[in-house]
Amino acid sequence: MPDFEALETELESKDANAFVHVGDRFDDSLRYLTGFSGPDRHYAFVYDGEAILCAPRLFCEQARKEFSGTVVNASDQTATTAGERAAELVSGTVLVPQEIPHDAAVWLEKADCTLESTDVVERMRVQKTETEIERIRAAQEAAQSGMARAETVLASAEIEGESLRWDGKSLTTEGLRRETNAAMAREGASDDRNTVIGAGKSCADLHFTGTAPIKRGETVLLDLSPRGPEGYYGDLSRTFVVDSEGGWERRAYIAAERAQDAAFDALSEGAGTVANTVHEETAAEIGAYGFRPDGMPGFSHSVGHGVGMSLHEAPSLRENRELEKGAVISVEPGVYDPEKGGVRIEDLVVVRENGFENLTDYPRSLVPTVRD
Amino acid sequence: MPDFEALETELESKDANAFVHVGDRFDDSLRYLTGFSGPDRHYAFVYDGEAILCAPRLFCEQARKEFSGTVVNASDQTATTAGERAAELVSGTVLVPQEIPHDAAVWLEKADCTLESTDVVERMRVQKTETEIERIRAAQEAAQSGMARAETVLASAEIEGESLRWDGKSLTTEGLRRETNAAMAREGASDDRNTVIGAGKSCADLHFTGTAPIKRGETVLLDLSPRGPEGYYGDLSRTFVVDSEGGWERRAYIAAERAQDAAFDALSEGAGTVANTVHEETAAEIGAYGFRPDGMPGFSHSVGHGVGMSLHEAPSLRENRELEKGAVISVEPGVYDPEKGGVRIEDLVVVRENGFENLTDYPRSLVPTVRD
Repeated sequence: MPDFEALETELESKDANAFVHVGDRFDDSLRYLTGFSGPDRHYAFVYDGEAILCAPRLFCEQARKEFSGTVVNASDQTATTAGERAAELVSGTVLVPQEIPHDAAVWLEKADCTLESTDVVERMRVQKTETEIERIRAAQEAAQSGMARAETVLASAEIEGESLRWDGKSLTTEGLRRETNAAMAREGASDDRNTVIGAGKSCADLHFTGTAPIKRGETVLLDLSPRGPEGYYGDLSRTFVVDSEGGWERRAYIAAERAQDAAFDALSEGAGTVANTVHEETAAEIGAYGFRPDGMPGFSHSVGHGVGMSLHEAPSLRENRELEKGAVISVEPGVYDPEKGGVRIEDLVVVRENGFENLTDYPRSLVPTVRD
Repeated sequence: MPDFEALETELESKDANAFVHVGDRFDDSLRYLTGFSGPDRHYAFVYDGEAILCAPRLFCEQARKEFSGTVVNASDQTATTAGERAAELVSGTVLVPQEIPHDAAVWLEKADCTLESTDVVERMRVQKTETEIERIRAAQEAAQSGMARAETVLASAEIEGESLRWDGKSLTTEGLRRETNAAMAREGASDDRNTVIGAGKSCADLHFTGTAPIKRGETVLLDLSPRGPEGYYGDLSRTFVVDSEGGWERRAYIAAERAQDAAFDALSEGAGTVANTVHEETAAEIGAYGFRPDGMPGFSHSVGHGVGMSLHEAPSLRENRELEKGAVISVEPGVYDPEKGGVRIEDLVVVRENGFENLTDYPRSLVPTVRD
């Protein structure tokens, strides 16, 4: 559970009595606020100087173990829905995230509360504590175990003509994904259905999850974003080619490597660096290698985003604002061509007072090596 | 993508022009409606006779592959947020799920739409198509692979005094969970962080996910709910005791087995069976074995719930209404005692016209056996 200083300040500055949010276990802000891994139905969080969780029936025990504030049991309230239960506890001006479920907002309004939306939780989430950073590092280590497994499979695949065989079968992106996810599960992390593995042309479709056979000489792009037991994500991408003949993918790989180094250079001053200068330095380096720096074919996305309790959160490296110390961001330049394939290299770093710390410890190489 | 007949009928009966929902990849109703595995930010679905998905930037390619309706690209709209984008496409009376994000509801109201809430999607989701049933069966098979792995580990653990050792280490619920999750990953399913493994007294805390060493003679309760690639869940529970001395856990196990058989008997007439009679028959059987049928210590939860695109969905077996054909439900009697442990046996079945089909093929036994 975070300290609620920023929430306290927000309540004071908006002259509000309470903050309320409602959602289920898939709401990352709620999980950040409560530490409660929760049920798949709505529950309510209330902050009015005291942190309160209106726990659903059958989940009070779990809430008491995971949440260090006050747990209100369903049987102690007359209201039944999460929004109505929160409304029983508050009055006057109430701050809510704009995405609070509509029925909860309606319950609060029926109880004569005046709602005002706030993004204070998104802002609180940017600066990670050292505990949060350790959880992200652990998730990144799980991603590294998955990557090592995938790289080992690629390095030990047999080449038969244009095809790859492994473990007596044709090697497919689906087969590689299963091996990778199993390796992350063994480290206690969930793949969270985020394991993107593209091969050849499908690498250029950024979120495509295919099942196709992997061929000799084509780019294999792996983007792993496992989630650890307390809900924090890792995020790691590497690109390999089995039996590369050089050409496009080698040029693209060198451009991505140099672009990542340019991003690291831009981050070397640490907190206070303007986010979009990191993006611009990266894009310029990709442009210097003859690839389009701002679209397809070329580099078509932002160089990075915040990672924490959500896989994508603030800050974006496209924003014209200073990076805060403790922000955890991905650094992921890529070069894509729908006719040729795609290359991306992604590390996860934390912005420090006078520099940055790379939370990733995984080699960069286009040629796969046996690693486990 | 489902056929939209029920949505069409709902629009007609409420004299509405359109249905709108907004959410992210974690919204199961949206995924059911669209097949889109989506991003972790909000997107909009609109139905006005035509099914429309307002896809976020960078996700149009993926949306076109996964969604068979019309994909509207962000660059073809002036609006930017998902709710505002939906509001550009509709007018008049618009049906929305009650949990639609509040900001989306506000955008629709600003565009002079009159909102009316509907539970039509929850109702549509109850009767599964054969395609959905096959996806649930595949997820249940992944759960069975995970269970076989866990059971094998328990059966092959070495007993040292009161402790269990496996693979050179003390066997813990966390270690067992990792093995189980890796086995499900190898089958292409994600554990989805749902793998509940209790040992001894923690079995009585229904959703507790511990990391404690597993001891000889205590109940080990595994509840596995993996999610398959298209988003459908399996749900399987078994309970084992290594080197049981009989007594409480054996009585509880026999009660749970007989109670599950009683539930199957109650379901044998198929569609039209009143849901809560299944619960009552099950509870009565647990009572006949001398355990409390409606609370702790004893049987403290419902005998089952719907399973599909959500792990918990309609129908509940506590409702006083007839089961529909094609409903997929868990059948999971349990007996718990915070001083002794907990036992649960859970299969997943589909309600058929004149009976039911068990989607589970996994033995029931308190004594673990090597299975892989």
